[in-house]
Amino acid sequence: QIFDFEDERQALLFAAYHREASPYGLHTSMFIPTLKTQASEEQQKEWLGKAQRREILGTYAQTELGHGTFVRGLETTATYDVERKEFVLHSPTITSTKWWPGGLGYTSTHAVVMARLIVKDKDYGVHGFITPLRSLDDHRPLPGVILGDIGPKFGYNANDNGFLRLDQVRIPLKNMLARFSRLHEDGTYEKPPHAKLSYGTMVFVRSNMILNGASALAKASTIAIRYSCVREQGMVQPKQAGETKLMNYKSQQYRLLPLLSHAFAIHFTGFYILDMYKDLLRRLDGSDFSTLPVIHATTSGLKAYVTTVAADGIEEARKCCGGHGYSQFSGLPTLFADYVPSCTFEGDNWVLFQQTARFLIKSLKAAVAGKPLAASVAYLKGYRAVGEGQKSQAKSGQDLLIPQVQLKAFEHRATRLIMEAAQLLETDRKAGKQYEISWNAHMIDLIRAARAHTLVVILTAFIERVEATTDEKNKRVLKKLCDLFCLYNIESPFAPCSSEFVEDSYFSPAQIRMARDNVHHLLSELRPDAVPLVDAWNFSDAALESALGRRDGNVYETLYNWASQTPLNQKAAKEGGVDVEGYTKHVKKVLEGGVNTEPM
Amino acid sequence: QIFDFEDERQALLFAAYHREASPYGLHTSMFIPTLKTQASEEQQKEWLGKAQRREILGTYAQTELGHGTFVRGLETTATYDVERKEFVLHSPTITSTKWWPGGLGYTSTHAVVMARLIVKDKDYGVHGFITPLRSLDDHRPLPGVILGDIGPKFGYNANDNGFLRLDQVRIPLKNMLARFSRLHEDGTYEKPPHAKLSYGTMVFVRSNMILNGASALAKASTIAIRYSCVREQGMVQPKQAGETKLMNYKSQQYRLLPLLSHAFAIHFTGFYILDMYKDLLRRLDGSDFSTLPVIHATTSGLKAYVTTVAADGIEEARKCCGGHGYSQFSGLPTLFADYVPSCTFEGDNWVLFQQTARFLIKSLKAAVAGKPLAASVAYLKGYRAVGEGQKSQAKSGQDLLIPQVQLKAFEHRATRLIMEAAQLLETDRKAGKQYEISWNAHMIDLIRAARAHTLVVILTAFIERVEATTDEKNKRVLKKLCDLFCLYNIESPFAPCSSEFVEDSYFSPAQIRMARDNVHHLLSELRPDAVPLVDAWNFSDAALESALGRRDGNVYETLYNWASQTPLNQKAAKEGGVDVEGYTKHVKKVLEGGVNTEPM
Ligand SMILES: Cc1cc2nc3c(=O)[nH]c(=O)nc-3n(C[C@H](O)[C@H](O)[C@H](O)COP(=O)(O)OP(=O)(O)OC[C@H]3O[C@@H](n4cnc5c(N)ncnc54)[C@H](O)[C@@H]3O)c2cc1C
Ligand SMILES: Cc1cc2nc3c(=O)[nH]c(=O)nc-3n(C[C@H](O)[C@H](O)[C@H](O)COP(=O)(O)OP(=O)(O)OC[C@H]3O[C@@H](n4cnc5c(N)ncnc54)[C@H](O)[C@@H]3O)c2cc1C
Ligand SMILES: [Ca+2]
Repeated sequence: QIFDFEDERQALLFAAYHREASPYGLHTSMFIPTLKTQASEEQQKEWLGKAQRREILGTYAQTELGHGTFVRGLETTATYDVERKEFVLHSPTITSTKWWPGGLGYTSTHAVVMARLIVKDKDYGVHGFITPLRSLDDHRPLPGVILGDIGPKFGYNANDNGFLRLDQVRIPLKNMLARFSRLHEDGTYEKPPHAKLSYGTMVFVRSNMILNGASALAKASTIAIRYSCVREQGMVQPKQAGETKLMNYKSQQYRLLPLLSHAFAIHFTGFYILDMYKDLLRRLDGSDFSTLPVIHATTSGLKAYVTTVAADGIEEARKCCGGHGYSQFSGLPTLFADYVPSCTFEGDNWVLFQQTARFLIKSLKAAVAGKPLAASVAYLKGYRAVGEGQKSQAKSGQDLLIPQVQLKAFEHRATRLIMEAAQLLETDRKAGKQYEISWNAHMIDLIRAARAHTLVVILTAFIERVEATTDEKNKRVLKKLCDLFCLYNIESPFAPCSSEFVEDSYFSPAQIRMARDNVHHLLSELRPDAVPLVDAWNFSDAALESALGRRDGNVYETLYNWASQTPLNQKAAKEGGVDVEGYTKHVKKVLEGGVNTEPM
Repeated sequence: QIFDFEDERQALLFAAYHREASPYGLHTSMFIPTLKTQASEEQQKEWLGKAQRREILGTYAQTELGHGTFVRGLETTATYDVERKEFVLHSPTITSTKWWPGGLGYTSTHAVVMARLIVKDKDYGVHGFITPLRSLDDHRPLPGVILGDIGPKFGYNANDNGFLRLDQVRIPLKNMLARFSRLHEDGTYEKPPHAKLSYGTMVFVRSNMILNGASALAKASTIAIRYSCVREQGMVQPKQAGETKLMNYKSQQYRLLPLLSHAFAIHFTGFYILDMYKDLLRRLDGSDFSTLPVIHATTSGLKAYVTTVAADGIEEARKCCGGHGYSQFSGLPTLFADYVPSCTFEGDNWVLFQQTARFLIKSLKAAVAGKPLAASVAYLKGYRAVGEGQKSQAKSGQDLLIPQVQLKAFEHRATRLIMEAAQLLETDRKAGKQYEISWNAHMIDLIRAARAHTLVVILTAFIERVEATTDEKNKRVLKKLCDLFCLYNIESPFAPCSSEFVEDSYFSPAQIRMARDNVHHLLSELRPDAVPLVDAWNFSDAALESALGRRDGNVYETLYNWASQTPLNQKAAKEGGVDVEGYTKHVKKVLEGGVNTEPM
C-alpha cells in the first residue's frame, strides 16, 4: 500500500484549512509524499523515517531557471559513473539552475533533484535523485552545492523558495528513486511497468489543491459576507431610518453569493475526487492501471479550473469590501497573494487543461466507436443528439431547477465543444497538417472543451451531494446553492464562458431570461442564510486574520486598534506625534524647498 | 479660467506614465486641483502659491472609517461659531475618523477636510475646509488633531495613508472652500449656481485615470510580451530544432494580444475624453453647463470599466509569465498591487456604473420623446429597430471588419440593455413600487447597460483614431488592433459580457464563428508586430523595473544577479552559505527534534 490513506487525508484536510506558506511546507507536501510513492522499500527504510522525524528536511527541486512546464527540457544532468557506482549531478548552464523550490534557499538539508539520467552517453530522460545539500552538523552547503534564496515574491515570503547550482556533485547509486524505474550497478536501465505510474503523486497533490481552493475561496467569502452584513453604506430607500447593509445591495449579493456557491461546489468536488483517488489506490495495489488516465485528466482540469476561480474569487471578495479590503488588516491581500501561485505551480492552468483535452478527444473517439467509457465521460454517448443541434427543453423557470435538466445543459456544452475541437483537428488531419501544429492552432477550442467538461464533473458532484443530504433543512439550502451555482454559470454575462450556452442557441433568449429570474430569486432567498452559510465553514478568527471578517462584527474598533499598534504609530506616539526620522530626512527638506516631489 | 489646461495635461500625462505611489502624490493629484477648482480667488491667493511652492503639503480627507461611497453619510462636523467667526471641526464618533487619505499619516501639513457644515443647528451638508494639521515649525500635530498611519496595505506602502481625528479644532471662516457655495460672516449660506459644478474636479481626475489605466495595462503587456518573445518552453512540433517561444503558443497570443489591444483602445479613449474635457472647460468659462451631465456620466463609466480591465489584465499578464511572473523581479506583483485600488478609490466601480446608468435611462427617455441627445448617446435614436429585435446583417468575416458594422453591434447591445433596464423600472413603477427599491432590484441590469455603453464610447474613440491616422503602415496595424479589440469582445467566451451579443440572437452562431475566425487570423497577423507594438509605448527599463521586460531580453542573468544581491544572500555569503540566525533560531531546533513543523 502506497499511503496510509486516512492519515494523509486527515493531515491534508487540516492543512488545506489552516496551512500558511511555510519554509517547511514542501517537506510535508512534496518531499515525504515523493519518498512514499517513488522510493523503493530500501530507500524508504533509509530516508522516510528520518524525514518523518525531521532529522532531515527536504524539498522537491524540479523547476529550473529555464524550464518549468516542459519537464523534458530540464538541463541538470545525473551522469552515472559505473566505476564508482555514483552519479555526478551537474548544472551545465545558468538556465539549468534549479529555481523556485520551496524551502530550498536556507532551510532544506536534502532535495529530490530532478535531473536527466545519462548512462554511457545515453540520455534516459528525467529522473529523481535524493540529494544531500547541507551538512547535518553545521548546515553548510556540501562541496559543489551552491544555494540561495530567489528573492522577494508577490506573497509566500515566509518561504525561502531557492536556487541551486550543482557543480559535479557525487551521490551514490542508491540515491536514484527506484520504485518504478531503476538503474543496475552495471548501468543497465530498467523501465517502469506503466508509463504513467508516477502520476500517482501528481494526482494526490492536485486532489488536495481542490480542497485547498475551496477553503481559500470560502475564507474570502466569509470575510466579505460577514463584513457586508456589518457595514452600512447609503440608502436603498430615500428616507429610511439608518443606512443599508452592503449585503442588501443587489450587486453585492450578485458578486458574493455565487462565489460562496462555488466554494461549496468545489468543496464537495474535492471529496468526490478523494473518493476516486482512494479507489485508484485500491486498484494500483492490484496492478490495475485502468483508471489512471481518467483520474489524471479529471484532476488536471479541476486543478486548473478551481485555482483560477478561487484566485479570481478572492480578489472579487476583496473588492467587495471597498477601501478596507485593501488594508492588510482585512486579511484578503495576503490570502490572495499567497493563493495565486496555485494557478502556476503543479502545472500551469493553461497547460493542464490541454492534458484534460487530450483525454476528452480520445474519449469522444471511443464514444463514436461505441467503446466503453469512464463514468465521468459517459455523457459523450449522447454526441449524436448534440451534433444534431439539440436544444434545451426547459419550458419554465421551474424546469431549470431540475437536476437532470441542469446536468444536460452542462453536458451538452461540453460535448459540443469537444466535438467542435475534434472536428477542427480532423479537418486539419485530412488536409495533411501535422497533429501538433493543428493542436496549437486550436488550443483555445481544446481548452474551452476541457473547462466545460470540468464543470460537468463539479455540477455532478454537487448534485450528488445535495441528493445524499438527509437533513431536510440542509438539503433545501444546499439545493438552492447548487441551483445558484448552476444557473449563474448559465445566465451571468460576468461568468466566464457563459456565452457557450447560447452561442449555438442551445438556450433561447427566453430560457436565459428564466435562468436569470431564477438567479435573482435565489439571491433573495439565500440572503438570510448568508451568514449561517459562512459560519458553517467554521473558520476561527485566528484562521481568518481579518478585522473585517470577525465573528463578533467589531470591525471599526479592531481596525483602529490594529492601526494604533503598528511600529510606526507607536514610535511616533513617543515622539510627539511626529515620525521624526521621516520628517527630518524627507518632509522637512521638501517643505524647505530642497527637494522636488513632482514627477517632472 | 480654471486650469492652465496644457500644463496640467502634460503633467498628468507624464505622471500617468511614471508615477509611483508616493506620500506626496495627493498633494499634486488632489490638494492642488481642489484648490484650483474649488477655492475662491482670495483663497487661492493665500494657499495656492504656498502649495505650489510646497511650503505646505496637503491631502484630501473625505473618506471616514464608516463612510466612503455614501458621502452624504460623513459624520465629521464643521460647526460655525458666529461670534468668533470660526468653524469648530469635530469627529464625534470612532466611525467619523478620517481614514485612507494619502500622505495624511506623517507627511501632510494641511488637508481639505470634507465635513458637514452646521450653522445655527441647521445641517447644510458636506463642504470642504482647508485645515492646518501640523505645525510648520516642528511638524507636530496642532492641538486637537490626532493623526497616524492606517497600517500595512496590499500595495501603496510608500504612501502613509492616514487617519485623522479632530477634537473641537478651530479654523477661521475664510478656510471654507468658497468658489461655489459660501458662508457669510453672519451665517447666511449661499448656494452654488449649479448643483453639479463641483463635478469638474471629479471629471478631471477620472479622465486622467483612463490614461493611467492604459499605461498600467501597457506596462504589463510590455513585460509579458517581451518575456514571451524571449522565453522558450516546449515544442509545437515534435522534432523541431530548439524549443518554441511562448509567444508562438496560441493560448499565449489569445491571452496577451487582446490585452494589448485594450491598452491601445483605452489610451486613445483617454485622449478623446481629454478633448471633451477641454471643451467642457471652455463652456464652463461661458457659464454653459450643458455638457456636464454627459461628461460626468461618460467618465464615471470609463473609470469603472478601465480600472477593472486594467487590474484584471495586469494579473493575467503576470500569470502569462509563469513562475517568474510571481517574482517581484518581474515588476508585475507591485504593478498589480499598486494599481488595483483604482477600482475602489475615486468612486467604487460598481457604484460609478450606476451613475452612468442614471444618465442612460434619462437619455433613452429623451430619445423616445424625440428630444435632442448628446453626441455620445445619439445612437439611442435607433431604439425602435432594436426593440423590434434587429439582427446583425454581417454576411462574411469581411463584413465584420467594417467599422459601421462593428459599431452597430456595440450600439445594439447597449441600446437593448438600456431598454431592458428601463422596461424593468417602468414595469415596477406601474406596479407602484418605489423607484429606489426598483433600482436596487435591477441594479445588475443597469450596470450591464452602463458597461455596454462605455464600450460604445471606447470603440468609437478607437475607430476615429484609426481613421485619423495618416501613416499607412501605422494605420494598417492599428486597424488590426481595433478589429481584435472589437471582435474579441464579441466572440471570446473569456471576454466579460460577450454573451450579451448572442443572448438575444443579435449574432447568429454562424456570425460568431466568423468573428472567431477573424480573431484567430488577426492573432497570427499581429504576432510579428507584437514586439514593435509594445516598444511603441517606449517604457524605459527603469520605468518597468522588470527583469522579464528588459529591452535587451537578458532575462536569466538579470534574475540571477538580482537574486544574488538580496540582503539575505549577501549576508549568508559571508557566513559560509548559511543564514546563521535563521538556522540557529529555527532550522536547527527542528532538526534536533524540538519543534513540530506539522500543522497538527
Ligand atoms: C510560489 C511558487 C512555488 C514553487 N515551488 C516549486 C517547488 O517547490 N519545486 C519546483 O520544482 N518548482 C516550484 N515552482 C515552480 C513551478 O512549478 C513552475 O513555475 C511551474 O511549473 C510553471 O513553469 P514555468 O514557471 O517555467 O512557466 P512556463 O512554462 O515558462 O510558462 C509560462 C507561460 O507559458 C505558457 N505555456 C508554457 N507552455 C505552454 C504550452 N505547452 N501550451 C500553452 N501555453 C504554454 C503558460 O501557460 C504560461 O502562461 C514554484 C513556483 C511558484 C510560483
Ligand atoms: C489606496 C487608497 C487610497 C485612498 N486615498 C484616499 C484619499 O486620498 N482621500 C480620501 O478621502 N479617500 C481615499 N481613499 C478611500 C476611497 O475613496 C474609498 O475607499 C472609496 O470611496 C470607497 O468607499 P468605501 O471604502 O467606504 O467602500 P464602501 O462604500 O463601503 O463599499 C464597499 C462595497 O459596497 C458596495 N457598495 C457601496 N455602496 C453601494 C451602492 N450604492 N450600490 C451598490 N454597491 C454599493 C461597493 O461596490 C463595494 O463593493 C483611498 C482608498 C484606497 C484603497
Ligand atoms: Ca527532527
